[in-house]
Order: sequence, then structure tokens, then C-alpha cells
Amino acid sequence: MASTYGNAIKLSIFGQSHSAAIGCAIDGLPAGIDIDLDALQDFMARRAPGSADTSTPRKEADAVEILAGITDGHTNGAPIAAVICNTNTRSGDYAELRRVPRPGHADFPARVKYANCHDVAGGGHFSGRLTAPLCIAGGIAKQALSQLGVHIVAHIAALGPQGVVDERLDPLTFSPQQRTAILDHSLPCISEHAAREMREAILAARADADSIGGVIECAAYGMPAGIGDPMFDGIENRIARIAFGIPAVKGVDFGAGFAAAYLTGSENNDSYRIEHGEVRPQTNHAGGILGGITTGMPIVWQMAVKPTPSIGREQQSVDMDAGSDASLVVRGRHDPCIVPRAVPVAEAACALALLDALLEDGYPLGARVDMAQRALM
Amino acid sequence: MASTYGNAIKLSIFGQSHSAAIGCAIDGLPAGIDIDLDALQDFMARRAPGSADTSTPRKEADAVEILAGITDGHTNGAPIAAVICNTNTRSGDYAELRRVPRPGHADFPARVKYANCHDVAGGGHFSGRLTAPLCIAGGIAKQALSQLGVHIVAHIAALGPQGVVDERLDPLTFSPQQRTAILDHSLPCISEHAAREMREAILAARADADSIGGVIECAAYGMPAGIGDPMFDGIENRIARIAFGIPAVKGVDFGAGFAAAYLTGSENNDSYRIEHGEVRPQTNHAGGILGGITTGMPIVWQMAVKPTPSIGREQQSVDMDAGSDASLVVRGRHDPCIVPRAVPVAEAACALALLDALLEDGYPLGARVDMAQRALM
Amino acid sequence: MASTYGNAIKLSIFGQSHSAAIGCAIDGLPAGIDIDLDALQDFMARRAPGSADTSTPRKEADAVEILAGITDGHTNGAPIAAVICNTNTRSGDYAELRRVPRPGHADFPARVKYANCHDVAGGGHFSGRLTAPLCIAGGIAKQALSQLGVHIVAHIAALGPQGVVDERLDPLTFSPQQRTAILDHSLPCISEHAAREMREAILAARADADSIGGVIECAAYGMPAGIGDPMFDGIENRIARIAFGIPAVKGVDFGAGFAAAYLTGSENNDSYRIEHGEVRPQTNHAGGILGGITTGMPIVWQMAVKPTPSIGREQQSVDMDAGSDASLVVRGRHDPCIVPRAVPVAEAACALALLDALLEDGYPLGARVDMAQRALM
Amino acid sequence: MASTYGNAIKLSIFGQSHSAAIGCAIDGLPAGIDIDLDALQDFMARRAPGSADTSTPRKEADAVEILAGITDGHTNGAPIAAVICNTNTRSGDYAELRRVPRPGHADFPARVKYANCHDVAGGGHFSGRLTAPLCIAGGIAKQALSQLGVHIVAHIAALGPQGVVDERLDPLTFSPQQRTAILDHSLPCISEHAAREMREAILAARADADSIGGVIECAAYGMPAGIGDPMFDGIENRIARIAFGIPAVKGVDFGAGFAAAYLTGSENNDSYRIEHGEVRPQTNHAGGILGGITTGMPIVWQMAVKPTPSIGREQQSVDMDAGSDASLVVRGRHDPCIVPRAVPVAEAACALALLDALLEDGYPLGARVDMAQRALM
Repeated sequence: MASTYGNAIKLSIFGQSHSAAIGCAIDGLPAGIDIDLDALQDFMARRAPGSADTSTPRKEADAVEILAGITDGHTNGAPIAAVICNTNTRSGDYAELRRVPRPGHADFPARVKYANCHDVAGGGHFSGRLTAPLCIAGGIAKQALSQLGVHIVAHIAALGPQGVVDERLDPLTFSPQQRTAILDHSLPCISEHAAREMREAILAARADADSIGGVIECAAYGMPAGIGDPMFDGIENRIARIAFGIPAVKGVDFGAGFAAAYLTGSENNDSYRIEHGEVRPQTNHAGGILGGITTGMPIVWQMAVKPTPSIGREQQSVDMDAGSDASLVVRGRHDPCIVPRAVPVAEAACALALLDALLEDGYPLGARVDMAQRALM
Repeated sequence: MASTYGNAIKLSIFGQSHSAAIGCAIDGLPAGIDIDLDALQDFMARRAPGSADTSTPRKEADAVEILAGITDGHTNGAPIAAVICNTNTRSGDYAELRRVPRPGHADFPARVKYANCHDVAGGGHFSGRLTAPLCIAGGIAKQALSQLGVHIVAHIAALGPQGVVDERLDPLTFSPQQRTAILDHSLPCISEHAAREMREAILAARADADSIGGVIECAAYGMPAGIGDPMFDGIENRIARIAFGIPAVKGVDFGAGFAAAYLTGSENNDSYRIEHGEVRPQTNHAGGILGGITTGMPIVWQMAVKPTPSIGREQQSVDMDAGSDASLVVRGRHDPCIVPRAVPVAEAACALALLDALLEDGYPLGARVDMAQRALM
Repeated sequence: MASTYGNAIKLSIFGQSHSAAIGCAIDGLPAGIDIDLDALQDFMARRAPGSADTSTPRKEADAVEILAGITDGHTNGAPIAAVICNTNTRSGDYAELRRVPRPGHADFPARVKYANCHDVAGGGHFSGRLTAPLCIAGGIAKQALSQLGVHIVAHIAALGPQGVVDERLDPLTFSPQQRTAILDHSLPCISEHAAREMREAILAARADADSIGGVIECAAYGMPAGIGDPMFDGIENRIARIAFGIPAVKGVDFGAGFAAAYLTGSENNDSYRIEHGEVRPQTNHAGGILGGITTGMPIVWQMAVKPTPSIGREQQSVDMDAGSDASLVVRGRHDPCIVPRAVPVAEAACALALLDALLEDGYPLGARVDMAQRALM
Repeated sequence: MASTYGNAIKLSIFGQSHSAAIGCAIDGLPAGIDIDLDALQDFMARRAPGSADTSTPRKEADAVEILAGITDGHTNGAPIAAVICNTNTRSGDYAELRRVPRPGHADFPARVKYANCHDVAGGGHFSGRLTAPLCIAGGIAKQALSQLGVHIVAHIAALGPQGVVDERLDPLTFSPQQRTAILDHSLPCISEHAAREMREAILAARADADSIGGVIECAAYGMPAGIGDPMFDGIENRIARIAFGIPAVKGVDFGAGFAAAYLTGSENNDSYRIEHGEVRPQTNHAGGILGGITTGMPIVWQMAVKPTPSIGREQQSVDMDAGSDASLVVRGRHDPCIVPRAVPVAEAACALALLDALLEDGYPLGARVDMAQRALM
């Protein structure tokens, strides 16, 4: 059940890096949710490899084709299916990978799991390219949430061995200025200075035939209180279950997160006060979640992205057919740093998790006939 | 679907802090797995509030009663059901909580979600007490895994604002010495010195009417390569989905984890060599997982535990019925630090996730009739 | 995942015929649904073996103990757990069954599946006794539905080789008279005459050391239109998925059902008219379901119950240990006809399926905080 | 979760009658299962509207395009995705349906459920056309099963108001002759005479501007004993859950099925004997299933198909916008009898259910690395 997610929705993601197409099916979305396909394509563009010198030279238009589930500009209640055709594939680059696994990639465990029957071209189903259909689904979820007044924003919080850091997202209130800044800068950072320094760190890694990772911070503003569940379907569990599905993510935390382990209870607890007649926490160390359930404060979380395993240097590996040591230089096209492209993917993951939780809690979305008007007897 | 977990197994956890009983049902375990109930009770004892001055004075024997699913010392293929009767309840302590939510606890979001119909006594279904049935299930899973040669060990990696740290678990090879040390020391640490310092940090927090958190590290040794899935059911996703269900856990990472964000690719990649005829990574920054699938190296992960929200100091809160600010002193019995008691819970979470993944991948467990002998036609 | 059911709810059933207890856990019910435990016990009594000469002499009080999930007379949002302790077990009767499988029972396939590690006493997890926890869950679901104005009624439609038939349930309108008659008669029939004839058929079968089966008809009145889903989660699929879990059920159909195969389209289609300003089908061959979705008409369905496989006569079987033919006389206590006791089980199955569908469609149940009042930002 | 099926596999079906494409995604199939795409297309052809005068004049090549999951002629372990492009759509025919619901179709309940935002063209997601992707998935499952020696055969058992009946499938042993006859005859019948009579019944219905239904019998030969589960995931439950997702199916039964209700226990029980050293039931009233688990005998089941609701006659309906009575003549292209085309769909349903159960029980399929060879530690 690798590639299927959700309780109220069922998201299925399919495709390999070099298969005929990649795509997704999303079952369970209510009818009558407006979907703006141009806005969806704009969201996809944030993930696509840029013209920039900071990402892979592989070019894919990533044009989304809706096959089903949307008519007249809104969801029709049937499953949404959407695909992106893979136009620019170079399967010749990857033949050796079946024998000599790339360190840090899934080549070796995949060969064991799939008894060498997997598709190795471009990383197959493990490719970061599969985050494109995740962004289709997440982009649709973002639009649905936005119609409820929920806005999701992510940025690069920290990057590279030098630890270049950006400003933090406002943990208490949605800042349209921060969102605009992130979209405007050359890298998705609140601070232009940080964007510039991060860009230099990426170029330095490329020049060094190496790669770097980073930390992405994401916040969802406007979530109503009381959504989510204790135990296995808390908001943390739901977001983490998608976020760890993004290739290269090795850590996820919420609010103060790992830093909370070093606070005292009196420091970490968020006090309540009444403001404008409403219960409101005064700080947000909890990241908007207590007992798995939303508090009404922004959902704030982070994910750690490891450095891209594909690097230009020679690495030690093995020849699995020969049973001998071997060395390897990864060929093909790859990013010296995938963190910038993972920023919209974090937003997509967050949107899907929150939408699923809202629907499971019966939150009214889309067009609905009042229950009282349904009864015939 | 808050309290249900698993793909090949279905674990259901039920109970409130002060209900008649707490317990679990586990569907999907193969028949013929030996279960040692004494060993299970010993495992439960590691979670139970100790006689020690470092934990809550609430006393519960936590005696596990097996209701179904085990006969003649082994699983019988029917769902396992087990309960612990709640003998020592003091529901009178908690009445005020319905109106004045405790900072850091789920009181406020629970009131919104359940429209004030939830059970507030002792934290209800949100209580840390619910980790007891998780340990029943996890203890059974640990026994099943141990019969496959998979051993799971956890300890306190770091504790408190001073950041007292323990030695690390061996990331490459199972160390029976480390396991023994963890079980022998006054707190579950590899280093006796660390155990002593951590104990002092807890006593200092108690004296200060405050609480502290920490980081737990957990490793599973002996997992075969090729288990798990890409995307939403990777080993990371599966462990995180349970771990975030443990009250107070706010972060989870794997292998180098958040630290990987500050490494270069050439540092973080684990090279392969052939050893004794087998493919073997030379380091384990991946925490035994690539592309969601086991590499055959130890599964190594950490979880951050926030400081116990129940503290002895007066805190700012609100009176939700009156709609006014209020102050609060949390009464009742509670731990100044739950990290030591969460150590076996981490092992339980890890065991359940790995067992579910092994079963989903068709790993043979328990007694089985050879498929070739089944055909009648 | 044998013993787990539901999308919006997760029902887990556990227990063996002679285990310490049988019971269920139900996750996902909203908080604030009133539960009348006396009424639940009354519902259980309809399934329990009667004092009557038509059922097994095994006596079980079937007293339901609520372990969790209900406080102050209503659901509290946490999973409900309930058990019935098995007080009257005679495990000695069943030892031979491990070797010599009873025709018509699950003994043989269970031995293969569970590699002879299953619990054979009293049929283990396959026992009809497991319909008791199904009735606990279904009885709770019936109460929840009844608060929405949905009423579920079942009766014996036909019984035995002579084909004794009862009147049909009204397919268009709820008849309180029919319900009362069913509860009042010696067997659950609308017609007293049918009840008497059926009773005689059962006594004749018992005298003949044989057993008989029958057909149960069930209807749910008051379901709003527009509930359910196309394809795999239609109302038919949902009911059938539970009904085939009732031991001895071998067929399920809806509305005209198998008879519809012998009608023309012009006969079988239900015409629409406007009545009192509402769309209303004029007949109900569809059994209240089109495209898997409720039409607002009563949900009407039938299930075929095979004759009890336990009979007093010698039967041909095999000795699986010896690999030789053998003969068998089933000992132990059993019913010559389980159809009457299966009537409330059909109601339970129907109630659970409909409740799950209503909740999945966001139908408001229990106490809820208005979504608009939740937003803090 | 309407359009998602399976425990070990996850099948998602998407598309509307007149959307850009219809298709499916199948997650969870092991790698290394050989797939013959020509044979798959041949299987699809059995469902496609024939050149025959007995079916709809709508022409669709139903050419299956594999988007992902299959490389080099075998499954690669990643989800399979496949689509059929809709080439021959006439959406103009269906505009009025939004207001005036067709009796017997899902138009009315769909309008309520989807608040009139659904796609009405050609029946949208409710169209029988959606059985095409079910046949893609089922055709793949059939190929996988066939590699295990499991063969699935279906035919028309009875048709129309006159009750034309075919011979029965052999309930004890696979008959290649029966399978050949079914594929060779003008309609899928064992008896050529029955095929001819059924064809005449269909032509008569068409001439009468009416439609007819029928009963399909399906058998799976070669299933090993011990597969399946008690309660909610028995083989009956699994097959029924898919079968009721086929439009127009209103009843499902197994083995003697509804007829078992009229047998005595001594007649209905299948005695065991030892044959060639194996336990073998002497009859197969159980349809190969006891306690939800396979007995090793053929799985035999039937499904009742109602007459096509689209008929050429004027019918009574309502105008939902005007709130007034209305009459309706269904336009567009439709079959006077869909039973022949539903025969391969029954096989597909059966194959998917059995494959899922086999995989869930750990039955080895595809290429697999021996577990013992995986361990690195």
C-alpha cells in the first residue's frame, strides 16, 4: 500500500521517472469544489526544475492533464485523475545502476525487495519526479483549503553545512508579506539576504561536485480548532506520514519540536488568554497541535532534507552481480540541492494531510444538500 | 480512525485514564507465534510508574489479562484482545478541567472536538496511561520479532535543559552489552554516569515544581534488507505514524536525521563494500532505510519528548464557561519527567511498525502450512 | 484484517467461543450520542439462546460490560470497548475436532490456514457466538440511527424445506405494527401463523436429528437520500460485507434482488412522482439503492442462512492425522435452526453499515461544535 | 472511498463515461509477474460492445495504454496505471438528465449526494463503462492467478423473464471444454442451444423497446485451501464487495446460495473423504468456502443482474427543477441486455478478490528474493 494515502480521501500516486506518464488519482473529494487549473499549473511550476543554475538541466514542462473528476471548473464527486506525460526521458543513462547501487539512493534495497524486477531508469518509482503528482494532489488540496480560509506557506529555514538561516514564519498570525517575499525571491526565503547566501552555498556545492541539504519550515494558517485525532491519526502523524514519503526527508518535527526536549514545562507550555471573546494560546510551542488535535493556532512544522545523494564524485560501491567491490560515478542529470524544489512539496504534503483531517471530521466542503432536505419519508 | 493502526495487522487501542479498563485488540497476527506472558509482564513493568522518586505516585499493577487470541502459549490466529483493569482511579481530582484547560494538554482542543462530551478524568483517552496497551501490543510484537532474530533497544539519548547526554547506540552492530546496561541502570541509559546525572536533573525539576523533556534513541537490529515501501508506507512513515501517537512526542528523525541537513552528500552517503560475501554499507547515516526500504543495517531513529505539561506551578489559562481569564494549578499525580517511562514505549512503537511491514511483505511468521501442500485440485 | 470493519468507524471484533471473553472495540463514533444500556441489553436478549425448545441449551447471560468510550450515558468520543465474559464453557467436548473436521463447519480450512494452531473449542473465532459482539456494536449503531429517525426491522421471510413464508415488510413505509408483531410473536415473524408453522418446522428438524435454514428480510426506514457511494462502497457492498461475515449466510440480495433477473426493465424500474413537494419513487424494486446511493426509500434486503451444519446424525468425514476416512457424530450443544437468532444480527449488520455510510458522508451525529465557532484566527 | 478496493492491493478506478479517459491504478502487486498485454486486450474485447445486434451501437476500441508499473513484460513493483481514452463521446445527449432523472439509474440519488455538481453525461462515474478499468485490473489479476494454476470461468446461467437456463459449471473439477464452449458461442454460454435462445430473448426485448436481466455464474478452479478470513474478510465478503460495485448487480450468492435456505443440514453439508491422500469434500454446496476460508474446492458464486434501466419506452419521472411530474424517453445508446458483457466483469471481480486474499495470506507471487538471503547482520 506504498503509494496510497488518506482516510477520508484516497490518494494514489503512480509512475516512474521514465514511464509513459506519472500521475495520481484522488477519491473522496466532495463535489462542487472550485478548481482553477491555471493556478494549479502555477503551483506546479514552483516545483519544476527552474531555468536557474541551482537545479537539474532536465527539462519537463510538467503540464497537468486532468483525465477525470473535474467538470465545468469544479470537482464532480467522481475520483480526480491527472497525469503528466514524460516527454524527456533518457533511459540509456541508467543501465549500470542495476548492478552497482548508488550510495544514498534506494537502488540496493529496491533490488532486494523487487528481486531485480524494478524499473531502475531515473530512479523508477523512487525518483524525486514522483513529487510532481504529489504536488498535483496537494495543489488541489491547497485550493480547497484556501476556500475555507486556510493558507499554507513554506520556505527554506536553513541550508547547507554553513547553516545559512532564514527568518522564521510568524508562529501566531498569517503574514501575507512573508508569503509574497517567499514567492518573489530567487530562492523561497523570507529574507532576500538569506536567499542570496543560500544560492551561493548551492553554487559552491555544485562547483565542488557535491550536494547539500537543509531544513524546510511550513505553516498552515487558519485551521479551525478541534480537528484531528488522538493516537495514530493526530495532525502530527498525518503530516509526518506524507512528509516521510518525500524522497530525502529524514526528520519531521512540530512547533518547538526537537528543541522542546531542552525546555522546561513552564517554558514550553502555551498559556491561554481570552482575546476578542475567544480562547487563544499566547505562544505556539505546540505548533498548533495538542493531543493530535488542532488548537486553532497555526500548524507549524519542519522537515529535514538530506543532501542529494547523486553527486559528481567517485564513490565506493559494489557490483552486485559480480559480488565484488566497485567504484561509481553517478551520471545523469541531478540537482546539487533539492531543498528549494521541495518547498512546494512540503506545502502539498501539509495541505493533503489537513484536508483529509477536515473531511474526516465532517467539515463541510464543496456543494452540499442540506441533510434535512434529503428525507423522503 | 484515531486509535487504529496497521496494514497487515490492525491494532485498536481503547480506554480512558479512569475507565473500567484499558486495552487493545490486534487482528492479523499469524497463528503459531509463541507468546511468553511472563516476559510480556516484565516488559510492561519497564513502563509502569516505578517505586522511584522520579515518577508519579499513582500505583497501578498493570496486570495484563489476555481475553482472546492466545491459547496454549501461542497465537491462535484469531484477534488478540488484552486488557488492564483500572484499579486506582481518583476521578474527583479532575472536574475543574472541563472549564479551565491545562496548558500543554489536550483539554482545550478536545473540548472543541468532542463538544464537551469527552471524558476529562485523568486526561481521558489522551492520557499517557494509554501507552500501556500500546506496550501490550508492542511487547507481543517484540517477542514475534525476537523469534526472527530482530532485537529492539531504546534508551534516553539526551535529557533536560542541561542536555545531559548518553552514549549512542551502536549504529552498525547489535551490542548485548548496551542492552544489558540500559536494563540495569537506574534510568534506561547505556552509561551509568549519564543515568545518575539524568536522575539528578529530574529531581531538580521536581524540586522546582517544573518538568523536563528529552530525546529517546531507538534501534532495531537484525532487520532483513528489502522490507518496507516507497512513498507513504516507508519504514520512516510507519514508525513516525505510531511514534507521534505517543503523548508528548513532537519530533522524529532517522539516522543522521536533522543533522543530515548540515552534511554534504559526500559525507552523508553510506558507501557499500562486500563483506563476507554480502553487500554492506560502511556507515549508517541512513538509519537503515533508503527509499523507505530497509538496507539490512540497523534501523536507528530518535524521538523528541516535550517536558510534561503538568507542572506544580500556577499557570495562566481561561475559564471556558465564563469566557474569562483564569489561573490554574494542576493537581493530581504526575511525573516531573516521562522520558524514562517512554523508553519501552518507543521500543513498542518500533516493534509494531516493523512487524507490520514484515507481514505485509509476506515474511513467514508463526506456523504455516506449505502452500504446495494445500492444493486439492 | 478479518475482524475489522468500516470506513468512518473501525469496528474490531474479538473472542473465541470459549475464550475468557468476547467483545468489540468501535473507534470513530462521534461524542455525545446517547446510549441506553438497558435497551442495548434488551437487544442482546433477542439474539441470546432462548428458553425455547427451538434453540441450544447452552445458557449465557450475555451481560454486556462497557469498558470504555461511554460516560454519563453518552459516547465520549474515545473508542467504545465492550465485552461479554464467557461463563459457561465446556472445552472438553471439542478435542476430537482438531482431527476429524465437521462437514459444513470451518474446521478443515481453519486447520490449513492456521497450521493447526487455532482454537477449536466451540468453533473458536468461527463460532456463531461471535455474533454477540456484532450485536453489541450493531445495537449501539441502531440507537444512534434511531435518534436520526432511522428504524431497522428484520424478520424471518422464509424457513425450511417446506418454504414456510411470512408476510413481507412494507417496502414503502415504516409500519410500527409490523415491528411490534415481530417482537411479540414466538418467532420473529410478522404473521403469527407463520411463526407457529416455522416453530413446528424447527421442532420437526430437531426430532429428525437434522437442521434447517431460511431467509431473513431486513428493512431500514427513514434513511435520507444521497448517502453511499458508487462502486466498492455502495450501500449494497457495505451491507453485504458485514452480512457475509455472519456465520452460515450464503446469499445477500437487495430489493427485487435475484427476482429482478427475471423482470423486464419496464417492470423493474421504479417510476418517480412528486408527492408533498418531494421526489418519490412509486415502487421499490431497487431496495432503496441506485448506483450504490440511497434513494430515500426504505433499504430492503435479504440474506440466505444455510441450515446449521451441526446435526445429530452420523456424517462422513476424515481423520486428518491418520489420513483415513472416518465417521463423525457432532456432540456439544447446538441449534436445529439458527435463523431466529440471526434476525437481530441482520439488524445489527444493517445498522453498522448505514451508520458508517452516514458518518462518512458527513452526516451530523452526536454533539458538535459549529464549525464557524471554532476559528481562532 | 467509493472507488478504491483491496487489502494487500489497492485498486483505484477513475473516469466518467465521457471524461478524457477512464482507467485504474493498482498498488501492491509484487514485482516480476509476467503480463501479456495482447492477452489483456483480448480479455477486454469480451466486455466491449460487440458488432452483434445484441448490444449498444456505441463503438469504443477500448485500447488499454499502460502508463506505469510494467516494464519488460512484467510488473516492476511500482503501482500499475492504465487508461483507456474516451474517443467516441456524445455529451449533447444527456443535458436533460440533470433535471429529469431516469428511473432505475443513479441520476436522482447522485443529484442529491453531489448537490447537482456531478457529471451527468453518459451516466458519469456510474456508467457501465467504468467496468472497463475494472476489467483491466481484473484481467491482470487473472493472468497472475493463472500463473498459480487458478482458472476463472463465468457464463450466463439464466436470462430473461422466460428463464432461459444454461448448463451449470462443473462444481467439482475444472472443465477446459466448458471454458472453450463459453468463449466460442455467440453468447457466453456452455450450451450452444442456450446461447441461441438467449440471443432471441435479447432481440425480442429490443424489439419491444424493453430490456432484460439475468444471472451470471462464476467459478474459480485451483484455489488452494486455507485462503481467506473469518468475519468481514471472508472470500464471500471480498467477492461480494466488488460484485455489488458492478452496475445493475442486485444479488450475490455462493454455492447452493439462496437455495441452501431450503435444504436440510444433512443435505447441504459436504462430506469429506480422503482421495489420493488428500482431504476432499464430496459435494460443493459450500461453493468452496467455509467460515470465509477456501476449502480447496472450486469457488462457485452467482450474481443477479437487473434488466438495463435504459429502455426505449416512455416512463414516468419528475422535473426536479420545476418540482413537477414529467415523462421521459431515454435517448442515447444502450444495451437491451448487459448480461453478456457483464460475464467477463464477473471474472474480473472474482480474480481481484482472490488475488488480494492470496497476497494478504502471504502466498508467494512474482519474483522474490529468499528471505534467508536478505539478512546482512
